[in-house]
Amino acid sequence: MGMVGGGRDAFIGAVHRMAANLDGQIELVAGAFSSDPEKSRLSGEDLFLDPSRVYGSYEEMAAKEAALPEEERIDFVSIVTPNHMHFPVAKCFLEAGFHVVCDKPMTFDVEEAVMLKEIVEKSGKVFALTHNYTGYPMVKEARQLVKSGKLGKILKIVAEYPQGWLIKNIDAEGQKQAAWRTDPTKAGASSCIGDIGTHAENLGRYITGLELEAVCAEFTSFVPGRKLEDDGNILVRYKGGAKGVLYASQVSVGEENSLTIRVYGEKASLEWKQEYPNDLLMKYPEAPRELLRRGNPYLSEEANKFSRIPAGHPEAFIEAFANIYLEAARAIRDAVEGVSVGGPYDFPTVDDGVEGMRFIQTAVNSAKAEAWTRFER
Amino acid sequence: MGMVGGGRDAFIGAVHRMAANLDGQIELVAGAFSSDPEKSRLSGEDLFLDPSRVYGSYEEMAAKEAALPEEERIDFVSIVTPNHMHFPVAKCFLEAGFHVVCDKPMTFDVEEAVMLKEIVEKSGKVFALTHNYTGYPMVKEARQLVKSGKLGKILKIVAEYPQGWLIKNIDAEGQKQAAWRTDPTKAGASSCIGDIGTHAENLGRYITGLELEAVCAEFTSFVPGRKLEDDGNILVRYKGGAKGVLYASQVSVGEENSLTIRVYGEKASLEWKQEYPNDLLMKYPEAPRELLRRGNPYLSEEANKFSRIPAGHPEAFIEAFANIYLEAARAIRDAVEGVSVGGPYDFPTVDDGVEGMRFIQTAVNSAKAEAWTRFER
Amino acid sequence: MGMVGGGRDAFIGAVHRMAANLDGQIELVAGAFSSDPEKSRLSGEDLFLDPSRVYGSYEEMAAKEAALPEEERIDFVSIVTPNHMHFPVAKCFLEAGFHVVCDKPMTFDVEEAVMLKEIVEKSGKVFALTHNYTGYPMVKEARQLVKSGKLGKILKIVAEYPQGWLIKNIDAEGQKQAAWRTDPTKAGASSCIGDIGTHAENLGRYITGLELEAVCAEFTSFVPGRKLEDDGNILVRYKGGAKGVLYASQVSVGEENSLTIRVYGEKASLEWKQEYPNDLLMKYPEAPRELLRRGNPYLSEEANKFSRIPAGHPEAFIEAFANIYLEAARAIRDAVEGVSVGGPYDFPTVDDGVEGMRFIQTAVNSAKAEAWTRFER
Amino acid sequence: MGMVGGGRDAFIGAVHRMAANLDGQIELVAGAFSSDPEKSRLSGEDLFLDPSRVYGSYEEMAAKEAALPEEERIDFVSIVTPNHMHFPVAKCFLEAGFHVVCDKPMTFDVEEAVMLKEIVEKSGKVFALTHNYTGYPMVKEARQLVKSGKLGKILKIVAEYPQGWLIKNIDAEGQKQAAWRTDPTKAGASSCIGDIGTHAENLGRYITGLELEAVCAEFTSFVPGRKLEDDGNILVRYKGGAKGVLYASQVSVGEENSLTIRVYGEKASLEWKQEYPNDLLMKYPEAPRELLRRGNPYLSEEANKFSRIPAGHPEAFIEAFANIYLEAARAIRDAVEGVSVGGPYDFPTVDDGVEGMRFIQTAVNSAKAEAWTRFER
Repeated sequence: MGMVGGGRDAFIGAVHRMAANLDGQIELVAGAFSSDPEKSRLSGEDLFLDPSRVYGSYEEMAAKEAALPEEERIDFVSIVTPNHMHFPVAKCFLEAGFHVVCDKPMTFDVEEAVMLKEIVEKSGKVFALTHNYTGYPMVKEARQLVKSGKLGKILKIVAEYPQGWLIKNIDAEGQKQAAWRTDPTKAGASSCIGDIGTHAENLGRYITGLELEAVCAEFTSFVPGRKLEDDGNILVRYKGGAKGVLYASQVSVGEENSLTIRVYGEKASLEWKQEYPNDLLMKYPEAPRELLRRGNPYLSEEANKFSRIPAGHPEAFIEAFANIYLEAARAIRDAVEGVSVGGPYDFPTVDDGVEGMRFIQTAVNSAKAEAWTRFER
Repeated sequence: MGMVGGGRDAFIGAVHRMAANLDGQIELVAGAFSSDPEKSRLSGEDLFLDPSRVYGSYEEMAAKEAALPEEERIDFVSIVTPNHMHFPVAKCFLEAGFHVVCDKPMTFDVEEAVMLKEIVEKSGKVFALTHNYTGYPMVKEARQLVKSGKLGKILKIVAEYPQGWLIKNIDAEGQKQAAWRTDPTKAGASSCIGDIGTHAENLGRYITGLELEAVCAEFTSFVPGRKLEDDGNILVRYKGGAKGVLYASQVSVGEENSLTIRVYGEKASLEWKQEYPNDLLMKYPEAPRELLRRGNPYLSEEANKFSRIPAGHPEAFIEAFANIYLEAARAIRDAVEGVSVGGPYDFPTVDDGVEGMRFIQTAVNSAKAEAWTRFER
Repeated sequence: MGMVGGGRDAFIGAVHRMAANLDGQIELVAGAFSSDPEKSRLSGEDLFLDPSRVYGSYEEMAAKEAALPEEERIDFVSIVTPNHMHFPVAKCFLEAGFHVVCDKPMTFDVEEAVMLKEIVEKSGKVFALTHNYTGYPMVKEARQLVKSGKLGKILKIVAEYPQGWLIKNIDAEGQKQAAWRTDPTKAGASSCIGDIGTHAENLGRYITGLELEAVCAEFTSFVPGRKLEDDGNILVRYKGGAKGVLYASQVSVGEENSLTIRVYGEKASLEWKQEYPNDLLMKYPEAPRELLRRGNPYLSEEANKFSRIPAGHPEAFIEAFANIYLEAARAIRDAVEGVSVGGPYDFPTVDDGVEGMRFIQTAVNSAKAEAWTRFER
Repeated sequence: MGMVGGGRDAFIGAVHRMAANLDGQIELVAGAFSSDPEKSRLSGEDLFLDPSRVYGSYEEMAAKEAALPEEERIDFVSIVTPNHMHFPVAKCFLEAGFHVVCDKPMTFDVEEAVMLKEIVEKSGKVFALTHNYTGYPMVKEARQLVKSGKLGKILKIVAEYPQGWLIKNIDAEGQKQAAWRTDPTKAGASSCIGDIGTHAENLGRYITGLELEAVCAEFTSFVPGRKLEDDGNILVRYKGGAKGVLYASQVSVGEENSLTIRVYGEKASLEWKQEYPNDLLMKYPEAPRELLRRGNPYLSEEANKFSRIPAGHPEAFIEAFANIYLEAARAIRDAVEGVSVGGPYDFPTVDDGVEGMRFIQTAVNSAKAEAWTRFER
């Protein structure tokens, strides 16, 4: 694979590389790691890459890789830039004939998202969006439990994602991760909900299949001078009558990545916490609670095929991330080999990306209007 | 003390009696345990009471007890009836010269609450409202931690109280506890928020001292035929800029009494769970989390004076409830003895009751309007 | 009831009184609260007792109470003195015709225990030993689960009870609770194992019914100058082939009362922690773990009849203690009323006391011999 | 690197490969994956290896790799065979000039261990033993906390490692992982203690630096027909006066890999659970408990340099395993480059292996003698 973004002082690029490395199926061979060519070159050195395939810009990379013989050039590109660059880079590589793995949120705004969907469909290429939390085996189990009807009709979803790292104004102090995420010209119309609220939304949709109908959002910028919200609380209505609460924060002091989801059905409820991802708690009206743990034979095949090691030896974030890569790689391999026997594939798609961008935009609109706001689709 | 309500098939009356018994300072000597005189009589028998002080109605009880010599008659009455009877009973006993301990929510509606406040003030009697969760020592510690400034300015409160017991339509089947709570002529304008959401509201206010400014509520009756909501989700704005999420449910399957509160400040955050009440978790931006446990010398005097046994031997619900009674009893004793040296007292007052009723009413209004609604005070 | 011991600066006496008060079935009316008559008198005042029934010595109390008319005198005495006084006080009251509730360990040594058993049997009176942890509803559930065969044959028991309060030499500084527990003339041949290890032993026996066959113990006095062990680790063999590990400590810094038991069977295992007593965890070889919670209808009648309030409102230490009193009171009432329909009763008996003393003595012998030591029965 | 063992139906080989892959610093290029040449060949195919470097035996591999030009041949071999093959394979490769990473327990018996130590020292090569649990960042933090004196003098260590997977006689049914572990000709003199008890021992020594002085062990084969113990309970004495309890089991039904260690010092205590490895709990005599979490700036440099991603995004088993590889690779790289500036290195050495084998042997001897048994060194 090749990579765009993820240079020396980036964070998520390294995660993508470890996720891609883990199973020995994917090899990083090319990259444009920074908009600064020198920084890109140095990053390539760190990664033991052939200097001839470390590029100064993504356009150069797309062009030169496409010019390589088919058996030499990259199969796909992994896009790990700030949000505003996702669309142009994805467009460029898709149109140059490459498959794409892209970080979330998918684009800068809904318009780009809809355009990207068209481009992907026209290209016939694989496009995978790294809503990585859906890669956890116990999230896949949760999805299967809902599908199987064990929870009955879903009544309520409570999804929360509090972090605390932006309580200090580190964006103003130039901390790079903070700076672009709070800059409307790079992050888009939302910071907190766009960066992490969208994970909570995606997780709820992945597990339950429910689509949003309307939201009522409250956005707050607690840190003075911040242009985008650092805290968002949202009431949620799903098609079909389920209700929900979704909130995210970057200023909930002392929280790390406490993404938690509770799904309440008529017959049973489930609870999963990202920080303790090997456990899934089921609650019943008239029976003991059940604690399901990753890697056990009593879990569904859909969950267990994404486990690598036996129960009790925990797997975690990188392995879940790698599961997204494994499925994307499987789809890409099938595409490269011209077969289509392998699907369906279990990774987030461009449709998930469009829905995610709609969620962000509708929440932004609702927060501005201080009113319930319906989804436009 | 005397008791109104709490007969044979009631629930909360027994809790009040155990709470009153625990410390050997309060003795139940009279009661009107049911609107059915025969049931009242039998309940009195169960409790080994002198039959002459088991009354057929609360009016009779108030009159006859007031006619007894001062050293024989009850000092106060404990009101444990359904909501709609709180006001008339409280009024009756206050005007007959008795102190009152009353279950929550305080009255049927805001109007009654305001009237009751006037009656209490005019009477000069002690009025204690059993928002019992504020009796837990670690809740008192939480309040002290906020007061001490350890959390800094409070930014956000997340308070939740999911239960699952009303997922079946047991109210329609005549289960008494369910039936009156879902009957608008007995419970008032709200079921779920009135019964348990109000505990979550009170808990947040007790710990932080923050007052509500506006709410945006979504009420749902998930069980067909139910006249009042069995699930409520509320966005919350506090005076001074703090925000919050408050939700409660009676149809969150498998939940028992999972009242949880998280308070996020600029400097630190706290988390407390009613089902594991001896623990209080503190989170800091740049230091390890702290787990504070009831009964330890490092806690505040305000918390520790409400502990009965050493750390590691858990205390729980009944002890917390008894703490409300202990403080009310202290106030009553001071009043009876004509001294006022003992205050301030740490129990919920008629003012808390008025605020609680305003919260219920404003949430009901907001849910109907599907819009943000400001508090009128 | 009457009480011997438990004066002003005692700890466990107050717990016994709260446990006796809780359910409104038992009234404290007499006491010899201290070997110091003046302290006894003042303690009686604190408790609002009739001064004529507050005695200067237990002998006086037994004699004068026995001389009262039957309907006036106490039904039973609760003995809450240091260990060395249990036997003489119990003997005195049993022989004066009173039922007895006695704190643990039952006596100073095995010889006294065997004698007491004879006295109890000869007297025909009720004798209840407050191994209070067996009063927890979820411990009773654990026992039922073993009885029901759900765990299959029991293979292993791991019971631990670490505390940390004696890490400082507070016994040398005169702290009363510490001083007598570490004084071989008052506590007996063991401190740590006698005081708390014996609870762990009793708990394992209560839940599984297994009897000890041999132990290999290591006793250590970590704090210099201490005459008895403050830490004990024991390998255990049960009759029938089960094995075990049992350890206790008073110098495990930061531990409070972390009594924990794990019982491993051929078919399933269970785990219970005293500090979180409303939960019972079941583990299976090929099924999800189950978390059973107090107060739910899926529990056994044997557990639920000892619950007072609904699931999710925690009960704790005092309620468990009160369950011992409730059963003892039921037995005493049956005895007083001359009926024997009520049994069997669920409280620890003089036989449990004898077994507990044998356990302490055998562990002491083993630790001295540094060798496996068989039980003599 | 090259690998010996770890063919198609092996377990730990795949873990070693993922651990080696993760950070993109190590590449698997050769292997003798099975004693069955055909199986070795097929396993090599699965791994996309050049067939010319997939060997039919480890001897062939060592010889042929050594014959390759220095820049082509492997730098080190990873040995992931059953126990009895560790020694001959390690000897062969060390003597052929290769560095070695070897699974635990290091050898079949103490004699081999001592010989291997001599061979390693004579060779001057790097030898790393994969006691992988010491690779967890929070285990490294625990070690630093002890080193820093924060716990004061260590008094007691409780280390436990219960598993349940061998409750059924799957070894008799030919399950390969079970079969060799319970076969004295392949596993050595111990099964349960050799396989997992040795991890618990190593973990205690890694964290505290304490050396064992004597043990008193009880071994049991609960499953009929099993030749080696499937459960072991051990009392432990450390040099300098600390005491301990160490137990392991393969028949504790429902347990997965519940390796847990508690270290009690005079000033503070710590607790770490392998199944929730990002948390480390500290307990103090007179201060709140502290929950330390991986990836936070308040942790030691020694812990944080082994973290890959921010706090709250959990790392787990594979990452910890990879940390052993990272340090071994660093040492090997330094050796290859002829520098020795990089040390000291943080991975288990041949000395740890010798100590581990002594622990196993002494425990076996003690269990047979049913007596306390001192270490011979």
